[in-house]
Amino acid sequence: MTQSTLIIGAGGVAQVVAHKCAQNNDILGALHIASRTKSKCDAIIASVHEKGAMKVEGSFEAHEVDARDTAAVADLIRKTKAEIVINVGSAFVNMYVLDACIETGAAYIDTAIHEEPDKICETPPWYANYEWKKRDLCAEKGVTAILGAGFDPGVVNAFARFAIDEYMDEVTSIDIVDINAGSHGKYFATNFDPEINFREFTGVVYYWEDGQWKETEMFASGHDWDLPVVGTQRAYQSGHDEVHSLAANYPEADVRFWMGFGDHYINVFTVLKNIGLLSEHPVTTAEGLEVVPLKVVKACLPDPSSLAPNYTGKTCIGDLVKGTKNGQPAEVFVYNVADHKEAYEEVGSQGISYTAGVPPVAAAILIAKGDWDAKTMKNVEEMDPKPFFTELDRMGLPTRLLEGGLGGTDKAWND
Amino acid sequence: MTQSTLIIGAGGVAQVVAHKCAQNNDILGALHIASRTKSKCDAIIASVHEKGAMKVEGSFEAHEVDARDTAAVADLIRKTKAEIVINVGSAFVNMYVLDACIETGAAYIDTAIHEEPDKICETPPWYANYEWKKRDLCAEKGVTAILGAGFDPGVVNAFARFAIDEYMDEVTSIDIVDINAGSHGKYFATNFDPEINFREFTGVVYYWEDGQWKETEMFASGHDWDLPVVGTQRAYQSGHDEVHSLAANYPEADVRFWMGFGDHYINVFTVLKNIGLLSEHPVTTAEGLEVVPLKVVKACLPDPSSLAPNYTGKTCIGDLVKGTKNGQPAEVFVYNVADHKEAYEEVGSQGISYTAGVPPVAAAILIAKGDWDAKTMKNVEEMDPKPFFTELDRMGLPTRLLEGGLGGTDKAWND
Repeated sequence: MTQSTLIIGAGGVAQVVAHKCAQNNDILGALHIASRTKSKCDAIIASVHEKGAMKVEGSFEAHEVDARDTAAVADLIRKTKAEIVINVGSAFVNMYVLDACIETGAAYIDTAIHEEPDKICETPPWYANYEWKKRDLCAEKGVTAILGAGFDPGVVNAFARFAIDEYMDEVTSIDIVDINAGSHGKYFATNFDPEINFREFTGVVYYWEDGQWKETEMFASGHDWDLPVVGTQRAYQSGHDEVHSLAANYPEADVRFWMGFGDHYINVFTVLKNIGLLSEHPVTTAEGLEVVPLKVVKACLPDPSSLAPNYTGKTCIGDLVKGTKNGQPAEVFVYNVADHKEAYEEVGSQGISYTAGVPPVAAAILIAKGDWDAKTMKNVEEMDPKPFFTELDRMGLPTRLLEGGLGGTDKAWND
Repeated sequence: MTQSTLIIGAGGVAQVVAHKCAQNNDILGALHIASRTKSKCDAIIASVHEKGAMKVEGSFEAHEVDARDTAAVADLIRKTKAEIVINVGSAFVNMYVLDACIETGAAYIDTAIHEEPDKICETPPWYANYEWKKRDLCAEKGVTAILGAGFDPGVVNAFARFAIDEYMDEVTSIDIVDINAGSHGKYFATNFDPEINFREFTGVVYYWEDGQWKETEMFASGHDWDLPVVGTQRAYQSGHDEVHSLAANYPEADVRFWMGFGDHYINVFTVLKNIGLLSEHPVTTAEGLEVVPLKVVKACLPDPSSLAPNYTGKTCIGDLVKGTKNGQPAEVFVYNVADHKEAYEEVGSQGISYTAGVPPVAAAILIAKGDWDAKTMKNVEEMDPKPFFTELDRMGLPTRLLEGGLGGTDKAWND
């Protein structure tokens, strides 16, 4: 058991993390949540108590912190005696929080790659620009840092590792497919922070093929995928964190990421992008005000957490992994299906936040139990996937697979 | 001849007004141009001299003025000894400049209705909310104020008056159709100030039918018009200034305004509007900055004046007027066709600015000559259209008509 766990961030994913930590506070100890706006933390804690989510008697405290102030985060870690920090704040704060963990010795978990506000789409592999530069320091100090432990990146990295370990001698390709077949009923909305959401799709799309980085652009490469539960869905090659670590760990495999988009999303995105409204570079209004257009678009769009109450339908996220076993072609699709409404009923969040927020808590539990207490920096595919799947099964995100690939035999991962 | 003429504003229309004033400075006297940003005025004067546009030797001076400061505008009128003020600044400054003219006795001309920044689409008739409240004061002081003397409103009001005077005993309908069949080659741009442009289309669409105001919404009522030169073009009922004065002056006629839009424009407009990016109400970004979304969209879009060099194609703007003559149905389409490239070659502006900027100078000339020196406030349809058409013919905007309506006999207005 851990003495104390600190959550950084108070958005839709943090809401899920808070509920799941509460449901496992027998393992995660005293709970703390901190963000720039303390009232958001208070609201999350209130919703935890409303659902009676605390498994055993224990504390859950809110704090105000500027997560880009490493000293302040380190002070908070010391003050709260946190042994594990789950960072689900904005992607702009990762390195500051990681530094605070390295300074204090707390274990670090995040769910997305570090980004600098003024840069979109850095050179691949993305992790090498920031996180991996601290790998040796983590090892030297014996600090556990699990990078990208959300769903994608995160669980999909474990799916790839599992598929390769269990079904292949050699891997030739990993295609990660992320489909949200749900409906929020709004004209347009993003499922998580619009700023981060759009930034994913405005830069070069990098993918790994034939042992090298290749480039395409958003919506240029589409494919119809026939998936369990959600049926046939069109997805487009997109840039995504996990491509960058999987390509480093499995350089012999082609690694691609596919995100599902409807025509309406693409139209809105295209209009906003072409006009320049998705730009992170400030423009000056006629009145002399300097503004980043993307931040204004974000302010106009619905708050992703507001979508939850009316969200219906399901997500399907999985990895189609191909390779050879005993000289024969081998193929498997490892996947999870989640339901928006069930997520809302359990933790007050929609399915996208749910799939992103449950896995880092599973990772925290594995660190607390020792299974994943790596004492160095790791991406998820570098950790044993089986205890992770076991926790996820228990926590509401069961792992299934189609043996033989899409259209193959459907079964639980441990059947 | 006038002693001195003052232009307020330094945008795309002001550029045309400046060139046309210069080409007629034998009548309009010493020329002055003033705006918030003096350097824009300097650039316009430089372009006038570059084209050698001054008809006779004379002065053209630039000034800095805040046009929403009535006292400052009045001081400038006195300092420049201006007898005529052509206001082609933002629609937000009209009433301040008009007040300065009433105070000093200078004649006032504008090309669009007054707007308050925080209000979109006031109750009809629009002129009654601001301008017409000063009508009695203008009459009392003998101040000439010609409202809405651009193309639409402006020339199209004169088209209606002419059609009714010459072809009808009774008028039953006036349909004003504005088609820009030109191409600027950009992904998306507005032909004049995006802020004013979008504001036109985000409110209720008012039209006058059966002797009363009726309402529809933008893009709800479309019609294909088969027009001279530009061919068949789809246009949608829109709110527009001239509907509000023509309905007052010809209450027996149905009065509607139709603006041409391509599917691409409508799509972009719809996306921006539905997301809330065309709103004039401030939003607050996550960082706490208060911003009016529409002003950010404006900052992202191309400056309308930047479109001119590559603009090709033609505009067709006209009035289809129906009624009876000697108990028989009568119908005529009065129109002008303008060419973007020719406009650019002559005055360095695209055709939309050209059609908006030439008419107020024609009006100024008519005031200087005495034909239109009304000594009170008038909308254009209240003035004799024939000297106006004669000036416009000479200045590059010839008036033509189809006797019998669309598909009828094509001839010049004075053939």
